[in-house]
Amino acid sequence: MINEMPELPLLQERAGVRPITIISGTNREGSYSRVVSEIYGEIFERKSQPFQIIDLKDLPADFIFSASFENSGEHPEFNEIQKKINASSKFVFVVPEYNGSFPGVLKAFLDGLEYPGSFKGKTAALVGLASGHMGGALALSHLTDVLHYMGVMVLPIKPRLPRISKILVNKKFADGIYTDLLEEQVEMLIGQS
Amino acid sequence: MINEMPELPLLQERAGVRPITIISGTNREGSYSRVVSEIYGEIFERKSQPFQIIDLKDLPADFIFSASFENSGEHPEFNEIQKKINASSKFVFVVPEYNGSFPGVLKAFLDGLEYPGSFKGKTAALVGLASGHMGGALALSHLTDVLHYMGVMVLPIKPRLPRISKILVNKKFADGIYTDLLEEQVEMLIGQS
Amino acid sequence: MINEMPELPLLQERAGVRPITIISGTNREGSYSRVVSEIYGEIFERKSQPFQIIDLKDLPADFIFSASFENSGEHPEFNEIQKKINASSKFVFVVPEYNGSFPGVLKAFLDGLEYPGSFKGKTAALVGLASGHMGGALALSHLTDVLHYMGVMVLPIKPRLPRISKILVNKKFADGIYTDLLEEQVEMLIGQS
Amino acid sequence: MINEMPELPLLQERAGVRPITIISGTNREGSYSRVVSEIYGEIFERKSQPFQIIDLKDLPADFIFSASFENSGEHPEFNEIQKKINASSKFVFVVPEYNGSFPGVLKAFLDGLEYPGSFKGKTAALVGLASGHMGGALALSHLTDVLHYMGVMVLPIKPRLPRISKILVNKKFADGIYTDLLEEQVEMLIGQS
Repeated sequence: MINEMPELPLLQERAGVRPITIISGTNREGSYSRVVSEIYGEIFERKSQPFQIIDLKDLPADFIFSASFENSGEHPEFNEIQKKINASSKFVFVVPEYNGSFPGVLKAFLDGLEYPGSFKGKTAALVGLASGHMGGALALSHLTDVLHYMGVMVLPIKPRLPRISKILVNKKFADGIYTDLLEEQVEMLIGQS
Repeated sequence: MINEMPELPLLQERAGVRPITIISGTNREGSYSRVVSEIYGEIFERKSQPFQIIDLKDLPADFIFSASFENSGEHPEFNEIQKKINASSKFVFVVPEYNGSFPGVLKAFLDGLEYPGSFKGKTAALVGLASGHMGGALALSHLTDVLHYMGVMVLPIKPRLPRISKILVNKKFADGIYTDLLEEQVEMLIGQS
Repeated sequence: MINEMPELPLLQERAGVRPITIISGTNREGSYSRVVSEIYGEIFERKSQPFQIIDLKDLPADFIFSASFENSGEHPEFNEIQKKINASSKFVFVVPEYNGSFPGVLKAFLDGLEYPGSFKGKTAALVGLASGHMGGALALSHLTDVLHYMGVMVLPIKPRLPRISKILVNKKFADGIYTDLLEEQVEMLIGQS
Repeated sequence: MINEMPELPLLQERAGVRPITIISGTNREGSYSRVVSEIYGEIFERKSQPFQIIDLKDLPADFIFSASFENSGEHPEFNEIQKKINASSKFVFVVPEYNGSFPGVLKAFLDGLEYPGSFKGKTAALVGLASGHMGGALALSHLTDVLHYMGVMVLPIKPRLPRISKILVNKKFADGIYTDLLEEQVEMLIGQS
């Protein structure tokens, strides 16, 4: 669930700040969302900002049934993820567009978390991934509605990365303009009190 | 998955029409969505309209992982549900509001179905369930965006049932006004060519 | 308000059908929306489908104040436009994106029309215009919510025309792919009962 | 446009803070939005927070034509309102629901303001007014999309006031619960850096 960061405790101690959680918003194996999540991680590293990645592919396969409703809080593996959410007050959501909205697995994940303690009063940065030129706007709009419902402040800068399969080369952006976009958003997220 | 309807084949034969599929939009056990789905079913029966109910609580527990992406089409139980979707050209979506949108499990279900064959050129009626006075509008708006993306005609009449735990008594509406609302919508759905 | 169509009455008589109203959704002079509205008009002409264009630039300059609320129905010029709306049961909305939604003047126009008689039970086709690569989705989603509220059936095919200043050359699409897109939508609109 | 506040300059000097602008989001005469705007004003007064009200009924009647596009910046009366917007970094939007969204006049007003200088980097609190039990959610969702596009941070607490004609008695809330709701939101708005 969490990427390897041996220096994380040290960073946290040094900076006295809580880790920012990056949520890779699909359970697809080898997703572009994961690649972009790691690019965010590198930006945080350059800024000495502790972070952790939650990749939805690491969710228990049956979490929609085993960690919801009457089973809430009963699933040890899901509870570990809940703890990571609780440990952060700032989030990055990396969001591909599936069928004109964000992935169902991401909404199911949010539905399974404690409410309203998980997110109320926290802050989120959203980034959209689209396979074509035009996608992503509806996914980010819907997710904003959900996060607002949960009491999350959502940064108005919500970059969208078009033609994601083209603009990533060897897991890096081919064009620096995208890194700049994400850096600007990250500055705003870190600066948010 | 499908409710018992021994007379269904007969009705289909008689009417020469395909069954309308009612989707109970949550995997919660004993949900109000299921109760409302059955009320729709009774309306269809009174109109001699064949129907079937897909209750998301009957989905394979791990379908988000086992019936998506590289596993698409590999899960026999999910394939049976896919066939039921393929057999219908009209749908009723019974939709509770979870966290300011429709349930994640419903979106994950839609994400797992074949695209665009499952829904393109078909018609859907949506009904919203809210626990309080005010909910439901965002859930139905988001679902409309998704269904439009999938090529579905969505009826503009989208009733919302407020305070669902109060207006249902012994699995029936206490006030006939709600039955009238659903009947009006059903008339429009059946009449749609 | 209405483009010159001396042959319109004849067409209507011959076809026995009501004109489709194309709404050019901004009051900007010389707008791309007007150009695209005329392209729709040419498509309708080729199909012998009567049509009329309402261009929002022709609205009375003070209609937001003079044709709303206590002044509703008092403005002769606005009443003429109301009559044109009443005469149609099918509409094309040509919609640029302004500030992440559709133009305020278009919403103000809809707010000023009779409710629910103006649109209830009618059908609309939407097309989005964007100056850049990515726009238009939110404008069309918001307008869909409004039209559904007003009881309008909205076609799920909602083409978006990106980089509109580039793809139009001499008031025609430089690439036939866009004409094909609109033709497909028009077929669906005309076929809708 | 601005309510009478002889003590405003004094308050501003004393507090060293910029006035918060309350936007009464309709041009209807005698609107509930204006009443609720004044209730916000009283809350700000109790907190010694300078404020000003922009009531859209005071806009130039023809502003959609005379203060937009090629006429931008040419209308002295509209320019005065632009200055008031520029003077604030925090806003309250009081928003009735018209036809399943926020009023067209409000969007037209936003479309007429300078972009992006008017709102970028600023903060907004939204409140929804509904005539019935259920309205308001879509209006606030659409307005959030627009404000995010303009670079505004939108508070996630977005109270909705149902049955507005009933809950206001002599221009005050009959039930203190609504005042508490608005006070909680105002605290968050004032506290926002």
